[in-house]
Amino acid sequence: MSQEPSVDDLGFARLDLDRVRRTGDPEVVLASHKTTEQTLTALARLSAAHPDRAVLATRCDAATRAAARDLPGARVDDVGATVALGPVPASRGRVAVVAAGTSDLPVAQEAVSTLQAHGTGADLVLDVGVAGLHRLLAERDRIAGADAVIAIAGMDGAMPGVVAGLVSIPVVAVPTSVGYGASFGGIAALLTMLNACAPGVTVVNIDNGFGAAVAAVRMLRVARRPA
Amino acid sequence: MSQEPSVDDLGFARLDLDRVRRTGDPEVVLASHKTTEQTLTALARLSAAHPDRAVLATRCDAATRAAARDLPGARVDDVGATVALGPVPASRGRVAVVAAGTSDLPVAQEAVSTLQAHGTGADLVLDVGVAGLHRLLAERDRIAGADAVIAIAGMDGAMPGVVAGLVSIPVVAVPTSVGYGASFGGIAALLTMLNACAPGVTVVNIDNGFGAAVAAVRMLRVARRPA
Amino acid sequence: MSQEPSVDDLGFARLDLDRVRRTGDPEVVLASHKTTEQTLTALARLSAAHPDRAVLATRCDAATRAAARDLPGARVDDVGATVALGPVPASRGRVAVVAAGTSDLPVAQEAVSTLQAHGTGADLVLDVGVAGLHRLLAERDRIAGADAVIAIAGMDGAMPGVVAGLVSIPVVAVPTSVGYGASFGGIAALLTMLNACAPGVTVVNIDNGFGAAVAAVRMLRVARRPA
Amino acid sequence: MSQEPSVDDLGFARLDLDRVRRTGDPEVVLASHKTTEQTLTALARLSAAHPDRAVLATRCDAATRAAARDLPGARVDDVGATVALGPVPASRGRVAVVAAGTSDLPVAQEAVSTLQAHGTGADLVLDVGVAGLHRLLAERDRIAGADAVIAIAGMDGAMPGVVAGLVSIPVVAVPTSVGYGASFGGIAALLTMLNACAPGVTVVNIDNGFGAAVAAVRMLRVARRPA
Amino acid sequence: MSQEPSVDDLGFARLDLDRVRRTGDPEVVLASHKTTEQTLTALARLSAAHPDRAVLATRCDAATRAAARDLPGARVDDVGATVALGPVPASRGRVAVVAAGTSDLPVAQEAVSTLQAHGTGADLVLDVGVAGLHRLLAERDRIAGADAVIAIAGMDGAMPGVVAGLVSIPVVAVPTSVGYGASFGGIAALLTMLNACAPGVTVVNIDNGFGAAVAAVRMLRVARRPA
Amino acid sequence: MSQEPSVDDLGFARLDLDRVRRTGDPEVVLASHKTTEQTLTALARLSAAHPDRAVLATRCDAATRAAARDLPGARVDDVGATVALGPVPASRGRVAVVAAGTSDLPVAQEAVSTLQAHGTGADLVLDVGVAGLHRLLAERDRIAGADAVIAIAGMDGAMPGVVAGLVSIPVVAVPTSVGYGASFGGIAALLTMLNACAPGVTVVNIDNGFGAAVAAVRMLRVARRPA
Amino acid sequence: MSQEPSVDDLGFARLDLDRVRRTGDPEVVLASHKTTEQTLTALARLSAAHPDRAVLATRCDAATRAAARDLPGARVDDVGATVALGPVPASRGRVAVVAAGTSDLPVAQEAVSTLQAHGTGADLVLDVGVAGLHRLLAERDRIAGADAVIAIAGMDGAMPGVVAGLVSIPVVAVPTSVGYGASFGGIAALLTMLNACAPGVTVVNIDNGFGAAVAAVRMLRVARRPA
Amino acid sequence: MSQEPSVDDLGFARLDLDRVRRTGDPEVVLASHKTTEQTLTALARLSAAHPDRAVLATRCDAATRAAARDLPGARVDDVGATVALGPVPASRGRVAVVAAGTSDLPVAQEAVSTLQAHGTGADLVLDVGVAGLHRLLAERDRIAGADAVIAIAGMDGAMPGVVAGLVSIPVVAVPTSVGYGASFGGIAALLTMLNACAPGVTVVNIDNGFGAAVAAVRMLRVARRPA
Repeated sequence: MSQEPSVDDLGFARLDLDRVRRTGDPEVVLASHKTTEQTLTALARLSAAHPDRAVLATRCDAATRAAARDLPGARVDDVGATVALGPVPASRGRVAVVAAGTSDLPVAQEAVSTLQAHGTGADLVLDVGVAGLHRLLAERDRIAGADAVIAIAGMDGAMPGVVAGLVSIPVVAVPTSVGYGASFGGIAALLTMLNACAPGVTVVNIDNGFGAAVAAVRMLRVARRPA
Repeated sequence: MSQEPSVDDLGFARLDLDRVRRTGDPEVVLASHKTTEQTLTALARLSAAHPDRAVLATRCDAATRAAARDLPGARVDDVGATVALGPVPASRGRVAVVAAGTSDLPVAQEAVSTLQAHGTGADLVLDVGVAGLHRLLAERDRIAGADAVIAIAGMDGAMPGVVAGLVSIPVVAVPTSVGYGASFGGIAALLTMLNACAPGVTVVNIDNGFGAAVAAVRMLRVARRPA
Repeated sequence: MSQEPSVDDLGFARLDLDRVRRTGDPEVVLASHKTTEQTLTALARLSAAHPDRAVLATRCDAATRAAARDLPGARVDDVGATVALGPVPASRGRVAVVAAGTSDLPVAQEAVSTLQAHGTGADLVLDVGVAGLHRLLAERDRIAGADAVIAIAGMDGAMPGVVAGLVSIPVVAVPTSVGYGASFGGIAALLTMLNACAPGVTVVNIDNGFGAAVAAVRMLRVARRPA
Repeated sequence: MSQEPSVDDLGFARLDLDRVRRTGDPEVVLASHKTTEQTLTALARLSAAHPDRAVLATRCDAATRAAARDLPGARVDDVGATVALGPVPASRGRVAVVAAGTSDLPVAQEAVSTLQAHGTGADLVLDVGVAGLHRLLAERDRIAGADAVIAIAGMDGAMPGVVAGLVSIPVVAVPTSVGYGASFGGIAALLTMLNACAPGVTVVNIDNGFGAAVAAVRMLRVARRPA
Repeated sequence: MSQEPSVDDLGFARLDLDRVRRTGDPEVVLASHKTTEQTLTALARLSAAHPDRAVLATRCDAATRAAARDLPGARVDDVGATVALGPVPASRGRVAVVAAGTSDLPVAQEAVSTLQAHGTGADLVLDVGVAGLHRLLAERDRIAGADAVIAIAGMDGAMPGVVAGLVSIPVVAVPTSVGYGASFGGIAALLTMLNACAPGVTVVNIDNGFGAAVAAVRMLRVARRPA
Repeated sequence: MSQEPSVDDLGFARLDLDRVRRTGDPEVVLASHKTTEQTLTALARLSAAHPDRAVLATRCDAATRAAARDLPGARVDDVGATVALGPVPASRGRVAVVAAGTSDLPVAQEAVSTLQAHGTGADLVLDVGVAGLHRLLAERDRIAGADAVIAIAGMDGAMPGVVAGLVSIPVVAVPTSVGYGASFGGIAALLTMLNACAPGVTVVNIDNGFGAAVAAVRMLRVARRPA
Repeated sequence: MSQEPSVDDLGFARLDLDRVRRTGDPEVVLASHKTTEQTLTALARLSAAHPDRAVLATRCDAATRAAARDLPGARVDDVGATVALGPVPASRGRVAVVAAGTSDLPVAQEAVSTLQAHGTGADLVLDVGVAGLHRLLAERDRIAGADAVIAIAGMDGAMPGVVAGLVSIPVVAVPTSVGYGASFGGIAALLTMLNACAPGVTVVNIDNGFGAAVAAVRMLRVARRPA
Repeated sequence: MSQEPSVDDLGFARLDLDRVRRTGDPEVVLASHKTTEQTLTALARLSAAHPDRAVLATRCDAATRAAARDLPGARVDDVGATVALGPVPASRGRVAVVAAGTSDLPVAQEAVSTLQAHGTGADLVLDVGVAGLHRLLAERDRIAGADAVIAIAGMDGAMPGVVAGLVSIPVVAVPTSVGYGASFGGIAALLTMLNACAPGVTVVNIDNGFGAAVAAVRMLRVARRPA
């Protein structure tokens, strides 16, 4: 496949420097099982290898985010728990990031920060769950006019399916672990989304705002290809 | 508790003739694990013990339903798979039986027949799933004007929660086994309903149109009590 | 649907001020994923929008409950973890709130406080599990005379089904997470209730005393409608 | 352990002829994955090795039961699906076999036939589920006077726990696969029994009337030991 | 939302004729719980309402497919179990439909027929599972050059994640029920895909080739919007 | 049932003082969801009502055990987490309490203390898991000579089934939550025991040493009945 | 990786002719989702490509096995449901294939036929479950003297862990779907094996005798490498 | 079986001193449910009984590892959480320990330390997940040249199956609990590995690097047997 695949071996990790060539996006650091030092070292090395782009670390805890503030040019998102390094790309396209409830905000914000780091516009629409349908219907045209929608919900996870019946754009559904009892940490919402009556819904892992954003970025990339 | 509890011992079953006194409703025959002869014998004995009311058997297979047609006064519902015996009660109140899809009809019809056998009016509203929200919204006032709503859905099971956000009456949600893959025979719909964002939804077992109807009958009974 | 739907946009939430018109009850604040400030701000705004009614926040942690005590007219329930604001409504009707064990008290109390905030009478009956059946039978008439019963149990969750065989009123069953091992955080009790042999039982989410109370409120509302 | 362990090697099976010495009971043939020929051959060989006792095959399908009728002295139970060979032992003790519903009869009958083949008295009490509590309470003294009780129930599985609160003898609970939807083939009943509030309940596999009977036989054996 | 929402009420179903306006695609008939007559009636009515487009029925059994052959202009796909009516749209764009094994072909073909009925080009790539990686790598450029990829796999479900690491286009993963034992009817593959290490993978329900195709159609629609 | 059932209403609990008459054993306090004060108050009241017997509280945390030491005559078991009050009964019979590993000791000790409080002899046999079969075989005669065996194991839960093939007495199996990964908090061991190849095994809830002991007490009680 | 990877494209499948070079073993045809024609065509083509070795198809139904008998040189195993083509390899090494019960024979035979087709000796030991431990202990030396053991069990799945504590060779455990109720189609046995107390046990999928055999073949291959 | 089985009874444990004779390896102390004193006492006694070999404790917490540093000759692995005592054996053979991600390192290191304590060479290959396939392909020959491979992965768990398609040696797969949401603590990875398309993969419990190492040790032992 690759003639000279490029790997940066840090001892504790092998950074995949070839990824941007294959997939269009550089590798992203998942901080959740790493030390602050491992995360920031990997992020800095990725930034050095991609000087013209932003690089990203997700699921950064408070200590990592605090340490990241000392890095020149770091953009820290405390709600979405991300750290970005490198030049802010010009934003193209618009992805509606729609969350059913206030409690889904951290997942929504992870999606927003990921979209921005990948040079994609994000339009955050909060608290439009189906218990008060008019709140969602009032935002229908705003959502329908975007290039794609990331629809985020916990508990019953019903909102993304309702959205998919109202718009013609791709709907990436993100179940969240918000809820209690028989929500089973997001399983209920995940199943609801996989069984959505309206076609056109695709689903990512529970609380995976990052993955939804990268999927949307890929969708918009196709739109920008020369015919 | 009961001074002289009445039991009719058929050998293979002990009919609870005291139940109507305690709970307001006579015992119902669940035919699914019984022979045709057992089902119809039990039904006839219950009818003899309650000559002034209809009695009911549910989940009757085709053979049992065919045999039941020979019983004088039997009312056979082939879609809902029920058989009723005894005088048709005058119907009071109105319960909206709302089904998300065509495939949910057998469960809806079991609820309708159960309501009728208990002297309660049933108003069937079919195919109003959330993928085409306007179909549901067009029926909103009809549903909201009922005394209670039985909301039936398979697949994502999202409709009952949406209904609960639109009306002020009690919503009894019935998950159905309609679906495939990750619907897991109705588990997905069941979990959605248990986690409905709109309060006021209560849930019964998968495909249990009968149980939902009895619950609604109890709700309307309270409304008829002398103050 | 709604001509001029009313929404109060707090930035972090969009309060559904139209809900009382549609469903009869104002929106309730679920505090479990919110900050104290978010919870109390939302509660105050809801109270301002519904000056003639009580409004409620559920699942309030100790810090939120402590802060709420400074609000004029706040009623704080430390066992049920609720905070209510606004005038105490006159109480109509009576709902029996029946708990199988002492450990189910917090869920029972959440139901009681919710009923009271909605202007519905609550009658708490504690520790009547089926291991000592005579304790339950001794309270049978008291329960049967209510307008509805909320039956709460953890572990085997058997009590609500037994109650449903003894009374003619609606039974809303609440499984609780009380138990260990194969109780699986309330799944065992939930399944028991969904499979109750006695018809007329409907079920809400694990530990959802609030939802059971709102369902009961809806049931009693129907009873008060003019014929 | 065993000086000269005795095994009868049939090629497709190794009969454990030493078992009666170790455990007090001869090996039993589980027919469910065996051919009619394998089952009856094994049964005949076991009978030859234990000429003074009855030997048993369980879960025999219709073909095997039909073929067994040709064996001299065979006792075929079509409801319980068992075949026994060898002299009927004198019956000692009494085990109450209590079933919640008519549909639980095959499991109950498997228990009855197993008890009889092991020389233990069986007293079958049918259709005493908790939806009509008075049916169970009416039989309380009959059950309490036995040496042990095998309590069998599907659906919500609540009856064995109620029984355990009413008697002082050991309660062996058998969940059955009777039910639908969220009964999950007996899982709901199994969990209910494992979480029974009343202590003294022990549980066997779903539909395992045989195992419950052997456990009861062991309990009564201890009672007969010389002091 | 809709000024004059159009519904065609067939008695057993309410066709959502407004859907094409809202979502860009007409309603599709899911035949799996319908009679042949219901399916073909609904399909014919949808075709009449959308004379300039193809309309589709999925999960058609053999009898329905046989009857459909009598309809003028019907296109029957026996492998994918679909029936289409109406003019063949000109095909735009190209979606790679990649299946890990021969056994995944029916799901792949359902996706292909759905794409074609929606005017989208489909390029089927079969039997490129990860056990023989060179088979997949040999097709890498063909897949990477498409506008989107539908990646279909049963058993371990590993292929879509590997593909996502090799291309820059959106990857819609479809788990199939192919497998045995701990594949649990597609759950294993579903979980693998939801946890794919490579970002950009989104997932649909088990065996849902149809839904994956509609999602891809939506993605390509965005690309065709005027800037 | 009971002429004058005796209940001691503590406000937070209703003690079942009639239980000893019905079941042979007084009520036991499950401390796990109670305050220290609630637990010790209930225990003292039970002791007052049964002055000639020991009464028991289980699952007492460290604080409750510390406070209990101030009660005259309290016997505190720190390993088994129990507190007993009242005269030590003379011990009759012998139950072998057999644990597979060192980590199962707390559960085993809960069983031992429960047996002793009920006047039953306990013989503790530790660390005889099946990985070193000779350790178990060496104790075979000691176990086989008891009146019943409580067999306790976590991880694979295989030991009780092996024991049941070696002895003729009843085997009560207790799965424990000892293990990690796919032991799923004791589910693996629970399933193993429910599926034990050797008949005669009955099972209680995960970590339920108390329930196993009460079941054994009931078994021995039958043995002591006058013929 | 491979310079000129060899693939045989059959249209419905791409045979991986390079596999023997990479992994030492040719591709095997899994017949379970294929037509008879597809299976036998693929098998014949694999045989043509590897004229000096046996090639194998597994999970062949009766029709495929019948058709295979017409192929010159085919070896059909009706119990194990396999078909082999090509020269019988000289057998080296010895793998003990040990099954707990008679019902596990088909899985054991699949393992035996797979071993033989790969040139490895198989020694079948049947019906040595742990309920009669002496049957297993009697074969201990025969098993311990093999190069590896494939240990097969359904129901409680306890035997492989016991074997691992008795021998020093690798133990590959195969759970089977033999059982009922809470065996959950082999899940109980699978979990038991994953949690085996004795180290050295590795596990394959439920009923996967083939996979266990290939794993054993790989283990013996290492032993034959020149030092 | 054993003439004079040797057991060292510590009161809280019975050390199986005969194990090395039966299985080739001494007993290992699983520290996770033991006190520091219990762990180190058992380890010291095992070391005294096997003076010519290393003995091992796994899953040692920080306190136990700290205390172990005071033992003469102790080798403490803080990453793998093991403590070894006794002479370092000469290393023979080579097992490739391959981990998909940085976060899998603790499990990988547990495997490495276990291999070393058993006298087997370990070659650690880190961060070669399938998202960047070239990183794995670059190490293909290094892995293929080993005697066996332990392949460790969390999240989607796809890497071991890909490895098995590239090498001819045995592949022992270890799922890890690394991941979130629908990884379900390692269940997703476990299922992926059990369903691996490439044959020759066997699986151990989640996070069980120790068990995988012992299995590999057994495989290499066979290779060293005299022919």
